Amino acid sequence: MPTTVGAIGIGIMGEPMARNLLRAEFTVFVHSRTRATTDRLCGEGAQWRDSAAVLARSCEFIISMVNDSPDVEAVYLAENGVCAGLSRGALCIDMSTVSPDTARKVARAVEACGGRFLDAPVSGGKTGAEAGKLSIMVGGDAADVARAKPIFDALGKATVHCGPVGNGQLTKLCNQILCGLNLLAVSEAIVFAKQVGLDPKVMLEAVRGGAAASWALDNLGTRMLTGDFAPMFMIDLQQKDLRITLEAALARRVPLPGTALVSQLLAANQAAGEGREGTQALIKTIERLAAMNR
Amino acid sequence: MPTTVGAIGIGIMGEPMARNLLRAEFTVFVHSRTRATTDRLCGEGAQWRDSAAVLARSCEFIISMVNDSPDVEAVYLAENGVCAGLSRGALCIDMSTVSPDTARKVARAVEACGGRFLDAPVSGGKTGAEAGKLSIMVGGDAADVARAKPIFDALGKATVHCGPVGNGQLTKLCNQILCGLNLLAVSEAIVFAKQVGLDPKVMLEAVRGGAAASWALDNLGTRMLTGDFAPMFMIDLQQKDLRITLEAALARRVPLPGTALVSQLLAANQAAGEGREGTQALIKTIERLAAMNR
Repeated sequence: MPTTVGAIGIGIMGEPMARNLLRAEFTVFVHSRTRATTDRLCGEGAQWRDSAAVLARSCEFIISMVNDSPDVEAVYLAENGVCAGLSRGALCIDMSTVSPDTARKVARAVEACGGRFLDAPVSGGKTGAEAGKLSIMVGGDAADVARAKPIFDALGKATVHCGPVGNGQLTKLCNQILCGLNLLAVSEAIVFAKQVGLDPKVMLEAVRGGAAASWALDNLGTRMLTGDFAPMFMIDLQQKDLRITLEAALARRVPLPGTALVSQLLAANQAAGEGREGTQALIKTIERLAAMNR
Repeated sequence: MPTTVGAIGIGIMGEPMARNLLRAEFTVFVHSRTRATTDRLCGEGAQWRDSAAVLARSCEFIISMVNDSPDVEAVYLAENGVCAGLSRGALCIDMSTVSPDTARKVARAVEACGGRFLDAPVSGGKTGAEAGKLSIMVGGDAADVARAKPIFDALGKATVHCGPVGNGQLTKLCNQILCGLNLLAVSEAIVFAKQVGLDPKVMLEAVRGGAAASWALDNLGTRMLTGDFAPMFMIDLQQKDLRITLEAALARRVPLPGTALVSQLLAANQAAGEGREGTQALIKTIERLAAMNR
């Protein structure tokens, strides 16, 4: 009998991830806040379930991919949540990016109901999810990580076990520190290039092969030049991740001056109504600062 | 008859670059502030010249690789400088990182003496220079860039013509904006990882294949973890480059908040006597900030 997987949260990331599970021939059940978002997947073989609890009853594995810590708590702990329907020994994998404290709290509740829990946030965005090439950062017990391997292999190209529950999220926060500052680097370099009269496309070509190289330069730099601000990853979600990062940093008294600056500048994008654009729209804030100086 | 190249400034970068010119079977003449720094090269076939002017007399090409704008002005414009000995039609290539204004000023002087000039700063550091794999950003006339191709091919893996004289330097400043902020990204991510109890080595492994990827993460991150602060590129020189960048930005009224922050934090390294360490020592400043918070 094929393995049963329940996918909760069918959005920009959750939909292509569930599709890759179907392709890998898992039996896939889906639940999401808005049923219509699951229509395409149900046309491809997924089966709708009316609540997380009902979904949980049919599934050996449950993966969740939602926006923020309160959403994850609701998915697992609400009256009709996963914990209300969990089968003994079922393995829950939260792939959302949320606070490490939320991961630990939900893990305790799942274990109290006889289930197992991994936190497994991802990097790679929409294109990585579609290609099944996500980087997956996992926290939890080694035996559970091994058991989830067929799932992770269907979704990602690299899975790294980072320690106990919560460490997947903490590693993802490191990822977001890096992404945020690499993004600011590209924004400042391109605005500077334009203002001093360089052709920014030639500049990118000249520097991308050396010590300035980054994923952000290759992927976001080109989008900034063509004015393509469609979200690979939304500013509102990056801000949510940076908020969690800065809260965790404050709790441990780690100063992150650069990360804090990135978050302040992205707040200016949000104030300008650009929260649902891709993170590459950070360049608009730097450009507005430059324009103010004139 | 083999082409004659004069190399002025034999330091961390200039020495391996001159060595690659010897390997490419150019006839190489050398001059440097301190004669002893050229001993190894002279043992390998280079010929010492007592001044830049004397060196210029024998050479079709002259490359200079010195520290800062006043050094370049001295090399070309001083009493015993290149301009005092320049052969008609000789092509001067300054590969130092200096201000775009200096590049333009020296170019005018060289042209007034019947020579040609390119500004061609590089990226890739000591290891790139040794391997002949520098990225070279060139400003000047296309005909001169074409003429210099055999030289550039011996020194680098990629040469991009960025526009008229000065544009090589401006492109290099973009490179340094990127390198500076990518470096801060790695420093903050590793300090955060350590303070929240992650194994920073596992963290690097988990994030390096995704959207957080950068040259800095791969090359400086690992050195930060092993405490290897030997210079690939010195903090004092990075600060010189950021000073030129921030001056050029101020002149054009381009705000670079992230780049300015990086420079301020590197100033704390300089205050701690770490100016001659590699740029990866920036992590020490972030660690000291974290320690102060305790």
